[in-house]
Amino acid sequence: MNDEGGYLMKPTIKDVANYCGYSITTVSFVLNNKDVRIPEDTKQKVFEAAKALNYRPNQIAVSMVTRKTNIFGLIIPDISNMFFAELSKVIEVESRKCGYNVIYGNNNDEAKMDIEILNLFLDRGVDGIIIARSANRSEKYDRIFNDIVNSSNIPIIAIDRVSEEYSFNAVVVDHVWGGYLATQHLLKLGHRRIGCITGPKGQYTSEQRLEGYKKALDKYGVAYDEDLISEGDYSITSGSKNLPYLLGKDVTSIFAFNDMTALGVYRDIKKFGMKIPDDISIVGYDDIMLSPIFDMPLTTVHQPIKEIGKNSIKLMLNLMSNGKKKEPEIIKLKPSMMVRESTKLKVIK
Amino acid sequence: MNDEGGYLMKPTIKDVANYCGYSITTVSFVLNNKDVRIPEDTKQKVFEAAKALNYRPNQIAVSMVTRKTNIFGLIIPDISNMFFAELSKVIEVESRKCGYNVIYGNNNDEAKMDIEILNLFLDRGVDGIIIARSANRSEKYDRIFNDIVNSSNIPIIAIDRVSEEYSFNAVVVDHVWGGYLATQHLLKLGHRRIGCITGPKGQYTSEQRLEGYKKALDKYGVAYDEDLISEGDYSITSGSKNLPYLLGKDVTSIFAFNDMTALGVYRDIKKFGMKIPDDISIVGYDDIMLSPIFDMPLTTVHQPIKEIGKNSIKLMLNLMSNGKKKEPEIIKLKPSMMVRESTKLKVIK
Repeated sequence: MNDEGGYLMKPTIKDVANYCGYSITTVSFVLNNKDVRIPEDTKQKVFEAAKALNYRPNQIAVSMVTRKTNIFGLIIPDISNMFFAELSKVIEVESRKCGYNVIYGNNNDEAKMDIEILNLFLDRGVDGIIIARSANRSEKYDRIFNDIVNSSNIPIIAIDRVSEEYSFNAVVVDHVWGGYLATQHLLKLGHRRIGCITGPKGQYTSEQRLEGYKKALDKYGVAYDEDLISEGDYSITSGSKNLPYLLGKDVTSIFAFNDMTALGVYRDIKKFGMKIPDDISIVGYDDIMLSPIFDMPLTTVHQPIKEIGKNSIKLMLNLMSNGKKKEPEIIKLKPSMMVRESTKLKVIK
Repeated sequence: MNDEGGYLMKPTIKDVANYCGYSITTVSFVLNNKDVRIPEDTKQKVFEAAKALNYRPNQIAVSMVTRKTNIFGLIIPDISNMFFAELSKVIEVESRKCGYNVIYGNNNDEAKMDIEILNLFLDRGVDGIIIARSANRSEKYDRIFNDIVNSSNIPIIAIDRVSEEYSFNAVVVDHVWGGYLATQHLLKLGHRRIGCITGPKGQYTSEQRLEGYKKALDKYGVAYDEDLISEGDYSITSGSKNLPYLLGKDVTSIFAFNDMTALGVYRDIKKFGMKIPDDISIVGYDDIMLSPIFDMPLTTVHQPIKEIGKNSIKLMLNLMSNGKKKEPEIIKLKPSMMVRESTKLKVIK
């Protein structure tokens, strides 16, 4: 029905045969990589003809031959977490600059999904994979993941959530430093009872931020109090859920382990008749696009999102052209403090 | 290096041969769909053996045979627009319920990218495609798009941005009705100078909202004033950029054509020493997750995001099992008004 349209008048194998002067059978054998003895220069001419005509055969078949797809696979935990949405966009922009398209998969923070999507991308034949792993892991899936990465014949680069236990090519951010910065900022403002709403327990980026928190307390001679630590899951609702508990502990400030969590705190703080930063100081983590637009612009730890994207694509291209190295390359980036209006000197009551 | 790990000890073609009792050659012929005469029941037994052993051959080769991938492709305009992030998540959840994974592509609101990603997904062999088309189109790309959809042998379902000029299987929202609701709400509050920050000019969902705006004005006997219409692009910055112009036109209220735009208005309104809703009423469109959390919870047109997701997967499965129909099916959903705190009776100055 679309023949008249013209746009779909794809060149056929017959057109390729006419163009290069070989028989349809020969052309078909070559393009479908059939196991038949055909001289190399004939093959070459057929390929050239196909290229000249922009002949687009069944791409799946082509992939079997060329093993090149110009697609990167990107696996992220949660598309509705703005940090990952923004990071994805940067990675896509950087990939496109180098002639690559990106397809996404969402692991929904399930380790099983990491593996499932990894296999899906490997099976489909992408040229490289970038993955921010799920928060909820197990030793079993860690091991499977490790095996897949080691046996893969395309580069797999881990970003954001990378533990040091296993060694992957990775672009990571120093979250211990980030946690330290956030806490130090509050300590300098005179806060001593600093509540934390963490990420999922055992999740590496969360553990790192907590480690930074402890280090800062230690430096300032403030005793660590486990009662001030409340487990969240990086979602808006985890901000709301953990707020009443921390307020019950008389905290004068809260370090939310990501900005989405801080958003939840913002949403619910009014219910308690409190104002940010007059009654309580809030520090977030990530510096998503929205953070400066919050009613009280959020003081937060800035993650170098653009740098993560740029470096992961740079590392990817490097690995693709130079092949697998014995020792994985790990690029470590530093976060920085973005002081806005949600934090204030502690008021002595 | 991972042999000891065990996880990667994938069954080989030899294992399949041992299991079913046929030769490796036969098994290979069957699994690789080589053009050799092999009895159907032999083939059947080989396939069963492969299945029993969870034999995972080169999936690309398998796809050539089965033509079934259990993957849907989803194309969205902008992953950092929360409306699309939330919609994607719903579609992914609904797909997974039916045993399908989703891979994403971002068209960055470029018509060329719609075509590029469509072809990419078709070439890779997904089982169905859901697409929210780019805002910036041209007749040329509309026609190519139309041709691809009509000639495709898998279902392609358009969502969100569907003009009626072409006929696709689609799940759409009645944006004329949404525009009407938003404007009516402001008119009922006594507002007469209602500024609009639209989407990109010529973009169908934006044109529809504007049509609804005009209808409501007409119903209330208010003359349409083109000077109150300012063109945006559905981004946060387009809210900021268009705000000064509209304030210069003495509007008492603004209808932002999506919530991201309203966010931009929220961000910049303080610069003019004005407060929402005391000095100006704001209505958004979409009802993204953040809208109720805005400092002044946003009155907005609620898009039935869950229903869009559910209906598109339902339609997809329906098309997959019943095949292409002569007449495309269009499911039209109604938006609703979500009145929060950003709108107020017009103050007589």
